[in-house]
Amino acid sequence: MESLQNSAEEQQYTLYKDNSWPNKQESTNHYKSGVGGFVLVHAGAGYHSESKAKEYRHACKRACQQAVDQLKAGALAVEAVAAALVELEDSPFTNAGMGSNLNLSGEIECDASIMDGKSLHYGAVGAISGIKNPVLVAHRLLSEAQKGKLSAGRIPPCFLVGRGAHDWAISHGVPPCPSEKMATKFSLSAYKRNKRKMELAEKMDTGHNQTKKSRQSSGNAAHYGCGCWAENACNMNPYSTAVSTSGCGEHLIRTMLARECSASMQSEDAHQALLEAMQNKFISSPFLANEDRVLGGVIVLRCCRCAEPQSSPNVQGPLVEFLWSHTTESMCVGYMSAQDSKAKTHISRLPPGTVPGRSLAIEGGVCRLMSTASPCANEFFTLSTTLA
Amino acid sequence: MESLQNSAEEQQYTLYKDNSWPNKQESTNHYKSGVGGFVLVHAGAGYHSESKAKEYRHACKRACQQAVDQLKAGALAVEAVAAALVELEDSPFTNAGMGSNLNLSGEIECDASIMDGKSLHYGAVGAISGIKNPVLVAHRLLSEAQKGKLSAGRIPPCFLVGRGAHDWAISHGVPPCPSEKMATKFSLSAYKRNKRKMELAEKMDTGHNQTKKSRQSSGNAAHYGCGCWAENACNMNPYSTAVSTSGCGEHLIRTMLARECSASMQSEDAHQALLEAMQNKFISSPFLANEDRVLGGVIVLRCCRCAEPQSSPNVQGPLVEFLWSHTTESMCVGYMSAQDSKAKTHISRLPPGTVPGRSLAIEGGVCRLMSTASPCANEFFTLSTTLA
Repeated sequence: MESLQNSAEEQQYTLYKDNSWPNKQESTNHYKSGVGGFVLVHAGAGYHSESKAKEYRHACKRACQQAVDQLKAGALAVEAVAAALVELEDSPFTNAGMGSNLNLSGEIECDASIMDGKSLHYGAVGAISGIKNPVLVAHRLLSEAQKGKLSAGRIPPCFLVGRGAHDWAISHGVPPCPSEKMATKFSLSAYKRNKRKMELAEKMDTGHNQTKKSRQSSGNAAHYGCGCWAENACNMNPYSTAVSTSGCGEHLIRTMLARECSASMQSEDAHQALLEAMQNKFISSPFLANEDRVLGGVIVLRCCRCAEPQSSPNVQGPLVEFLWSHTTESMCVGYMSAQDSKAKTHISRLPPGTVPGRSLAIEGGVCRLMSTASPCANEFFTLSTTLA
Repeated sequence: MESLQNSAEEQQYTLYKDNSWPNKQESTNHYKSGVGGFVLVHAGAGYHSESKAKEYRHACKRACQQAVDQLKAGALAVEAVAAALVELEDSPFTNAGMGSNLNLSGEIECDASIMDGKSLHYGAVGAISGIKNPVLVAHRLLSEAQKGKLSAGRIPPCFLVGRGAHDWAISHGVPPCPSEKMATKFSLSAYKRNKRKMELAEKMDTGHNQTKKSRQSSGNAAHYGCGCWAENACNMNPYSTAVSTSGCGEHLIRTMLARECSASMQSEDAHQALLEAMQNKFISSPFLANEDRVLGGVIVLRCCRCAEPQSSPNVQGPLVEFLWSHTTESMCVGYMSAQDSKAKTHISRLPPGTVPGRSLAIEGGVCRLMSTASPCANEFFTLSTTLA
C-alpha cells in the first residue's frame, strides 16, 4: 500500500503457504486427521516497538491459526492463505487493510497479491480504495483466472489497479467499506506526524521541487515477482518454495526480491542461499547501486519431497525449512504446522550497533511434517548473521 | 493500456535504445559528427492489416527519425527513446496514447514504461487517463528518481497508477489532455465492434458470470520486467541488451518476457538464444501451461563492446545485433542507425498455415556502427523459424 515512507512504524503483511504438502485436502470439506501443512506469516519488516510487540505477535498468531483451521476444514492452500491474510489485514497494527498507512492526500490505498505455486496463477490489486480486505480481491482474480477465458475469448486479468480494481471487486461480490472506517487512531496519528516531518523538511529545503506533495498511487506489493512468489517442485526444481517480502516498495520491485529469493532456494543449503541472495541480490544489487540503505525483509518456506529417504520403517512426511531475513530494524513473524496446537511468533531484530539497510539478520528452523496425526517434530534454529 | 483483448487490431508500442554506444553525447547540446547510436522500435505485435500497413510503418519511421535527431542533438539515450515514443503515442494507428483502445467503460487508460540500461533506473505509469503522452510521465519518474531522495528521506516512486499518476504528472508539469480528444474514429469503431462481439458472446453464454462487464484497470506494459528491460554490459554480462515486448498483457507479465529475453541474450548466438527463450520461456512456459495460445512479440538489441577485435587498422565501432520475434500474426518494426539517412521499416508475418499463439517468427540483422562519420554497415538477415 502507499504510505509515507520511512514512517516510524512501517509494517506490511503477507502470508504464504506452499501447497505441495501431502494429504492436503484439495476440494473436500471433510476434515481428515493427519492433514499436512505448515504456514509462515509476517507482520512486516520495518520497526516494531516493544510497546506494541504483543499486538504484532498476536496478529501473526491469529493468522496462523486461521490458516491451519482452514486447512483442517479442507480448504485449498490459497484459500487458507487468503483467510490468514484477512486476519492480518483486519489487525489495526499491521500496515494492511484496516489501519493501513495513509497516502499523501490522507487516503487509504491498499495493495495485495497472492500466488498459487501449483498452477502458477497469480492475482493482485494495486492502489485499491474502499475495500476492507484487498486480499479477497486478489484471491478472486486468481480464482477467476483459473476458470479460463472470458466471453469473446478475452483473457481474464491478473492485476487490476485503482478505481477499476474497486469496481471489479464490487461487481464480483466483494463487500465495500467506507475508507474512513479503515483509518485508526494509530494510522491517523502516524499520518499527521509524518506529514509534519515532511513539511518541516521541505521548509528547511532550498525551496526547489515544491511539486512533490501531490497525491501518488503506486502498486508496490502487487508487482509480479516482487511482493510474493510460489513455485512448486518440478522436473527442473527439486524444491517447492514460497516467499513473501516486505519493506521499501521501490527496493523490493527493482530487485524482484521475492522471485530472486525463490530462485536461490534451489541450492542445497537454504540458509547459505538466502544469505547470499539477500547480500548479492538485495543489499549489493546493481539495481540499487545508488541507495545508501536498502530496506526489506523476506520470509521463505521450502520443501523437498523427492529426496526423502524411504528406508525408514516409519513413513516420514516432508521436511519443511522456514527462514526469514531482513535489513530493517525488525521483522515480526509467526509459524505453525497443522499438527501444532498453537502458533509460535517472534520479532527478529538486528543486533545493536548494526546499521539498518546495510546489515542483515537471518533466522529459521526446520519442521518434519508427519504423515500421520502424530505431532510434528519442530526444531528451531537461530542464525543471526550480521554483515558490515 | 487496457483494451478489449483479441480485438481485430491490437497494436502496442515501445522503443528501446541501449545507451552504451561510444561517442554518444551525454549532456551537451552540441552536435558532433560521428555520433553513434542505433534505434529499434515496434508498432505492436498483433494483427496489422495490409490496408493500414503504410501508416504503421510510417509511425515507426517517424519514431526512429525522432530518436536519431535527438541523439545528434546531444540527447541522452532515454531522452531519445522518450521522444520516439511520443511519435508512436501520437500516431492514431498505434494502441498507445492517441488512438489507444478503449476499456470496457469506453474510457482510455494508458500504460508506459522506460528503463535506463546504464543506471538501471525504471519509471512506469499504469492505467493513467487524461495525459496525451504517458511516456513523458514514465520518463519524468525515472528522471526524478535519479535525483535521489525526496524530503524527509522518502524514496521517490518508480511506478504510479490511476488517479495518483495523473495528479503527479500534472503537478510535475506534464500537460493534461481531455480523454475524449484521445479517441479516434478507428479506436471508437473498434470499441463498438468488440463490445458488440462481447455482448453477443455473453448472450450465447449460459448466463453465468454476468458480473464480468465491469470497468477494469490493469497496468500491463508498466509491470517491471514485463514491458521493457535494459541492462548495460558489466563484469557479469558481456553484452548490453535492450528489450521491448508487446501482445497479451497477462502473458507478458506472467512470463516476465522482457527480462527473460534480455537474460537469454548473454549467450553467444543471439538468434538461437532468442528462439529458445521464445519457445521455452514463452510458448511452452510452465506459467502459461493452460493457455491454448500464447500471444506476444519482442524486439531485442544487443551489443558487445568488450570482445571487439582491436587488430584492424581502421578503428571499428561496436557491432549491434537487432532481432524481433512474435507469436502473433504480425509485428511491425522500424530501425535506424545514427549514420543512416532514413529508417527501415518492416511488417513481419507468420508464414501462411501456421497457428498464431503456437508458432513463432524470428528475424533480425546486424549493424556495424562506425566510430567516424562514415556510413554504417547495415547487413540484414531474415530467419523465419516456424515451430509447430
